[in-house]
Amino acid sequence: MLDFEAALARVEGRLGLIPDSAARTIEDGVAAAADAFDGETIARAARTSGTIAIPLVDLLRDQVRARDPGAATYVHWGATSQDVVDTALVLCIARSREILATDHRRLGGALRKLSDQHADTVMLARTLLQPASPTTFGLKAAGWLAMISRSWARLVDASAAALVLQFGGASGTLAALDARGPEVASGVARELGLADPGAPWHAHRDRLAAFAAACGIYTGAIGKMARDVSLLMQNDVAEAAEPGGSSSSMPHKRNPAGSATILAAATRMPGLVSSFLAAMPQEHERGLGGWHAEAPLLSAIVQTTGAAVAAAADVSENLTVDRDRMRANIGATNGVVFAERAMVLLAPVLGRDAASRLIRAAIEVAGREGRRFCETLAAEPEVQAALPSGELATLDSPEAYLGAAEHFRRRLLDG
Amino acid sequence: MLDFEAALARVEGRLGLIPDSAARTIEDGVAAAADAFDGETIARAARTSGTIAIPLVDLLRDQVRARDPGAATYVHWGATSQDVVDTALVLCIARSREILATDHRRLGGALRKLSDQHADTVMLARTLLQPASPTTFGLKAAGWLAMISRSWARLVDASAAALVLQFGGASGTLAALDARGPEVASGVARELGLADPGAPWHAHRDRLAAFAAACGIYTGAIGKMARDVSLLMQNDVAEAAEPGGSSSSMPHKRNPAGSATILAAATRMPGLVSSFLAAMPQEHERGLGGWHAEAPLLSAIVQTTGAAVAAAADVSENLTVDRDRMRANIGATNGVVFAERAMVLLAPVLGRDAASRLIRAAIEVAGREGRRFCETLAAEPEVQAALPSGELATLDSPEAYLGAAEHFRRRLLDG
Amino acid sequence: MLDFEAALARVEGRLGLIPDSAARTIEDGVAAAADAFDGETIARAARTSGTIAIPLVDLLRDQVRARDPGAATYVHWGATSQDVVDTALVLCIARSREILATDHRRLGGALRKLSDQHADTVMLARTLLQPASPTTFGLKAAGWLAMISRSWARLVDASAAALVLQFGGASGTLAALDARGPEVASGVARELGLADPGAPWHAHRDRLAAFAAACGIYTGAIGKMARDVSLLMQNDVAEAAEPGGSSSSMPHKRNPAGSATILAAATRMPGLVSSFLAAMPQEHERGLGGWHAEAPLLSAIVQTTGAAVAAAADVSENLTVDRDRMRANIGATNGVVFAERAMVLLAPVLGRDAASRLIRAAIEVAGREGRRFCETLAAEPEVQAALPSGELATLDSPEAYLGAAEHFRRRLLDG
Amino acid sequence: MLDFEAALARVEGRLGLIPDSAARTIEDGVAAAADAFDGETIARAARTSGTIAIPLVDLLRDQVRARDPGAATYVHWGATSQDVVDTALVLCIARSREILATDHRRLGGALRKLSDQHADTVMLARTLLQPASPTTFGLKAAGWLAMISRSWARLVDASAAALVLQFGGASGTLAALDARGPEVASGVARELGLADPGAPWHAHRDRLAAFAAACGIYTGAIGKMARDVSLLMQNDVAEAAEPGGSSSSMPHKRNPAGSATILAAATRMPGLVSSFLAAMPQEHERGLGGWHAEAPLLSAIVQTTGAAVAAAADVSENLTVDRDRMRANIGATNGVVFAERAMVLLAPVLGRDAASRLIRAAIEVAGREGRRFCETLAAEPEVQAALPSGELATLDSPEAYLGAAEHFRRRLLDG
Repeated sequence: MLDFEAALARVEGRLGLIPDSAARTIEDGVAAAADAFDGETIARAARTSGTIAIPLVDLLRDQVRARDPGAATYVHWGATSQDVVDTALVLCIARSREILATDHRRLGGALRKLSDQHADTVMLARTLLQPASPTTFGLKAAGWLAMISRSWARLVDASAAALVLQFGGASGTLAALDARGPEVASGVARELGLADPGAPWHAHRDRLAAFAAACGIYTGAIGKMARDVSLLMQNDVAEAAEPGGSSSSMPHKRNPAGSATILAAATRMPGLVSSFLAAMPQEHERGLGGWHAEAPLLSAIVQTTGAAVAAAADVSENLTVDRDRMRANIGATNGVVFAERAMVLLAPVLGRDAASRLIRAAIEVAGREGRRFCETLAAEPEVQAALPSGELATLDSPEAYLGAAEHFRRRLLDG
Repeated sequence: MLDFEAALARVEGRLGLIPDSAARTIEDGVAAAADAFDGETIARAARTSGTIAIPLVDLLRDQVRARDPGAATYVHWGATSQDVVDTALVLCIARSREILATDHRRLGGALRKLSDQHADTVMLARTLLQPASPTTFGLKAAGWLAMISRSWARLVDASAAALVLQFGGASGTLAALDARGPEVASGVARELGLADPGAPWHAHRDRLAAFAAACGIYTGAIGKMARDVSLLMQNDVAEAAEPGGSSSSMPHKRNPAGSATILAAATRMPGLVSSFLAAMPQEHERGLGGWHAEAPLLSAIVQTTGAAVAAAADVSENLTVDRDRMRANIGATNGVVFAERAMVLLAPVLGRDAASRLIRAAIEVAGREGRRFCETLAAEPEVQAALPSGELATLDSPEAYLGAAEHFRRRLLDG
Repeated sequence: MLDFEAALARVEGRLGLIPDSAARTIEDGVAAAADAFDGETIARAARTSGTIAIPLVDLLRDQVRARDPGAATYVHWGATSQDVVDTALVLCIARSREILATDHRRLGGALRKLSDQHADTVMLARTLLQPASPTTFGLKAAGWLAMISRSWARLVDASAAALVLQFGGASGTLAALDARGPEVASGVARELGLADPGAPWHAHRDRLAAFAAACGIYTGAIGKMARDVSLLMQNDVAEAAEPGGSSSSMPHKRNPAGSATILAAATRMPGLVSSFLAAMPQEHERGLGGWHAEAPLLSAIVQTTGAAVAAAADVSENLTVDRDRMRANIGATNGVVFAERAMVLLAPVLGRDAASRLIRAAIEVAGREGRRFCETLAAEPEVQAALPSGELATLDSPEAYLGAAEHFRRRLLDG
Repeated sequence: MLDFEAALARVEGRLGLIPDSAARTIEDGVAAAADAFDGETIARAARTSGTIAIPLVDLLRDQVRARDPGAATYVHWGATSQDVVDTALVLCIARSREILATDHRRLGGALRKLSDQHADTVMLARTLLQPASPTTFGLKAAGWLAMISRSWARLVDASAAALVLQFGGASGTLAALDARGPEVASGVARELGLADPGAPWHAHRDRLAAFAAACGIYTGAIGKMARDVSLLMQNDVAEAAEPGGSSSSMPHKRNPAGSATILAAATRMPGLVSSFLAAMPQEHERGLGGWHAEAPLLSAIVQTTGAAVAAAADVSENLTVDRDRMRANIGATNGVVFAERAMVLLAPVLGRDAASRLIRAAIEVAGREGRRFCETLAAEPEVQAALPSGELATLDSPEAYLGAAEHFRRRLLDG
């Protein structure tokens, strides 16, 4: 907020809209106000004024008045509370994006590495939480990365579009600055490193809403990875694990603390985004309540996104993957997950209905007797007649039934 | 769904993956299945299978089997339920977008016209539901248009990115098609007029989430317009009105039915979007529950968006604007809304504190005695000494205090 | 809606507020209107009027006018659109509650039976998706039941409180009925089997909001059960299973279709509830938009609740539980889940820090060498000195470390 | 959290489960830990452990160990992290409820007083933001009060039900305490002033969800009042006003800061509640992510509720009501809001269709010529023939068309 007031004074002084000496005194006052700033005092005062801008401007004006009473006249010249508050919000987004970007890069790098290392690591695909024909962990990690990367690109686009100055004065016309308003606006935008949107956007909150939604989608994308990691880390699955944290009661436990943080973030986000959207139909030239709901929401949205990506970077950089267990878990299905493959081989020869009947019978036997599915299937004379025996012997080789897994993996990494 | 099955058979026939005659029979079966299709039967069957794809494929296979039992083997060849359902969902989005676009064009055209017609129509700006210095209705309408247009552009981008084929087979590797999967995928995408995303996206729902969010923001943007219209249409304000509907009990009433429809849509949307985001952390290669939540949500999201934009087009095409009442409502403030202007004139001469004291006193007198603010102010000797009397006489002329309103209006229309 | 109009005419006729013959003709008209009723026509007409009440009343009046033009005057006498629509909504809730109750009873009965059957069935507790010391499946099912039962009790209370007549006339004063309004209200309430709330509640939506929230919590409670079932049904866990549905591509699969339906409902619900709450701050004596958002929301809320409880009843009535696998999965941890028990025994003797060091070492050895935790622990001389060897031999007996499981189970069933 | 640990030690000491001296040392340690407590340190440490309980227990154990190493063994004896964290959360709710109750009493008292003072104050009812036949401000305030009171009663009930001890140990069986668990539980509950729920509720979050929802409904109810106040305070309506705050740019403005705070709260709440509901389907005996999402949500929910009720108490205690303007705004409609009354008088005599035609014509003339509706209506010969002229002369007397307003007002206050 003080950066805005300083930039405003600087530009108005330069353009001769306020005395040059006043502009300089205001800059000094800004530095002093930053020292004197006390968040709690500002917040309490805002309860009666309805905005933190008023006590902030009062604080600044007091500092300026103490230096030069005449200069105090020109504090906040031509601006309104919303100009200060919204621009400050936008500047906070700009800063937070850098922090998010650092963790995002860590996360992206770690996932790419995991995917490359495990391009050949076969594992069960699982659909509706049931075992399906195999995939690779490399493809799985590539899928996480691609979803997270697309979502990050949206977040970057949305924040770039939202990083615009707010400056419209009392009614969104900058009337107090006569015809010079747009000139001041572009100057202040430049000073603050923001884009000049061409017109104020007091009650037009779509840019911020798009940023909020992009944060929500990005966090949801990270949440998908955490869901998978937490499921893979179950003791009964044990295919991958994050370092995790300890337990206060059970010495043996290794809790997926990173996944918990991410899933908690992914649980909180949708509600925060919905509140932001609900605030959009704001009244006339400055909303009542809807506007006031936004700042705590955006703060929670950015913090929650940050918690998710930081934890995700830690999880992915430290994820251990157990290739042997992955292969063993395929084996533990007795090969019934290759039933689709059997169907593809048998149906063209025997017809779908006959093939289906034989396969279901073999699945049933394999399950009841704990035998390999391909063996029980090969024991059927109809099957022997239909297929060369060699083809059935390798039916349950994961490597032989990966289809386009590697092709897809590369496409996903190429983004 | 049937379009997907037909395209799949066509492409697989063309590539020699299934017999050409089977492909042709399947196409015939699709036509017959479309005739035999009964939504309720499919829906009931889906309660046990967990997906509408299975009874749909059964229906199709029955039709094909009746024509050629051998061809029935090749129905749905290499595909999985999610491929059918998701691609069908995407095709529905494609169709709905055309409907939305038609209404959006009407809305955009009407708002541009309103803005141009009322470039000079002065009215009170209202901030926090209180009167502020004047603006123009042209600027107000331009603000609506710009927000709605930006939001539409996001919706178009998001839907373009979401209009991609889903095709991954049982586990997202297209293993049943061996190495030919990607070739089939690009062929099917072309047949259906969709983009080929390069890899399946079974549990990666960010593209759809981005589309859902864009619909939410667009509806929120339209909701802002409806909020304003409904407030302007209050009997005590009476500055603008939509045609509205009648009342079942009160013959005199003209209810803002269009605004009600829009605001109802804007109220429902944030929750729908949040549910979509909450569904994102889907398990492994196909989600359980999260995926199943999406179809009714997307259907409600698109319908709600459509209700909003259709009503908004009607409202904006038929909005009546009362210029005289707008000017009269400025007058009814006794000109106190020009207090900021008085401050801009007086503060540089008298100092902010003295100016503020005089202005507050004049506001108080104007309110108590029902006199024009600029007259009560001009009666003060200090003010007379500070300003030429002519300047105060026109203090409350709306046209003289519009600042960059027209500049901003043009910038907003230029988009 | 027609029930309301008939009851209104009947009561007003009885009280002499409208001619007795008119009342009888209106009752005839209601029967005819029910036959002539066409939902789509009503819905389309409502787009201009903003409410379905107006075309409905028009339809009824036409039917009455055709019988007796004079009687048409007294259709809807003293009522307003919202009276009809809200009362009809409340009547729909009353009917739907019976349907929900039937499935809820099935669910409750099945869970109680499961809990009793498995009072002694030991299984791993799992916290943060990691194995913990044992519990019983009986306690787990009792926990589901208790949570679902408490939530049902809230739903019953909330719907009882919401089943009240809406009747306030144009402005909520029943002015058109002079002083007789309250008398008519209590008569109409009685006719419809609803409570008379004592005053209209046009823009006071808390009772409906409480019902919506109770549905949301009830569905969330059922969702917890479905989450657990779907996790227990994972192939790698295999401790319980619902019958499930088949797959369109993989013959071996048994998809948890019931859990999917429930989890989809639990995913959709929170957003629906939030939209309902967001609609609460309705304007003055009848809301604009907020009120209009409610009917589709309530409809979706009730349907979604119904989908969840129906599927949950099916799942619980048909759940298979694998006691052997539950015990085997405890064993597969090598007994490290009894580390807490070892701590409880050793810490008082050796001190917490020494005990902790020994236990962690034993866990590490057990994991690395695949040996039983209690054996590796017993091999330590310090441990042998501290504890009688018999105590360690049964350290990993699940039955010996269930604490108050059965006590808690009974308390939960007693509710 | 420390209160829980102290109570646990006290009870376990009393029951002889831990040495009496250890219990006393732990109590001393609690006091020391409270002094040494540093929120930020605890929070940072929780990032790796996934819960604030672990660093808190470590802190306490260090304090105890420094006093008596042997006693450190018995810190947190038999408990798990969730027991500490959940019980602490519940204790926070208990404290916050007292604060909420104080403001709620202020609010209720002020609204009752407003309602009584304005039992006879006539004003326009407004439906769909359009003027309707009159009501009284007393009835309006009573409606606010009744909705807020019902919602408060729900909040009180829900919090009473939620104020229960959490105590289940590692797996929800209290196995570490052997058969003594339930006895310890009831003792700890008594110490902390909480109810003993009979069994732990680790992953059964319905009670907290019901509390969260009740806060949401209560805040929505207050939001309805704020919506009305902010609309009544519009300059063009000017029927009521809260004290409000000032503007940073416009000296004349009086912003409804209290209503803004309330409406902001009502905008944020639904999303927070929905996130809480979304977190309900928690895994097995302790949720991963869902549980972790709750604490920041509940904190935001309680704070937001508190902000709303505090502001509402201030607004209602300081609301100014302008009876004259209320009457004048009725008059400004030219009496067309009494069209329903005219219909009630004329329709029985002339038939509804003829009456409707005459009334609509009179409304049209009244609007075009700015004359009183009852005069233009009385000028019609058909009307003169139908009604005694006296009846029409007082047609637009608000007091004569209030129906059961006062009856309803009293019923609502009796609540």
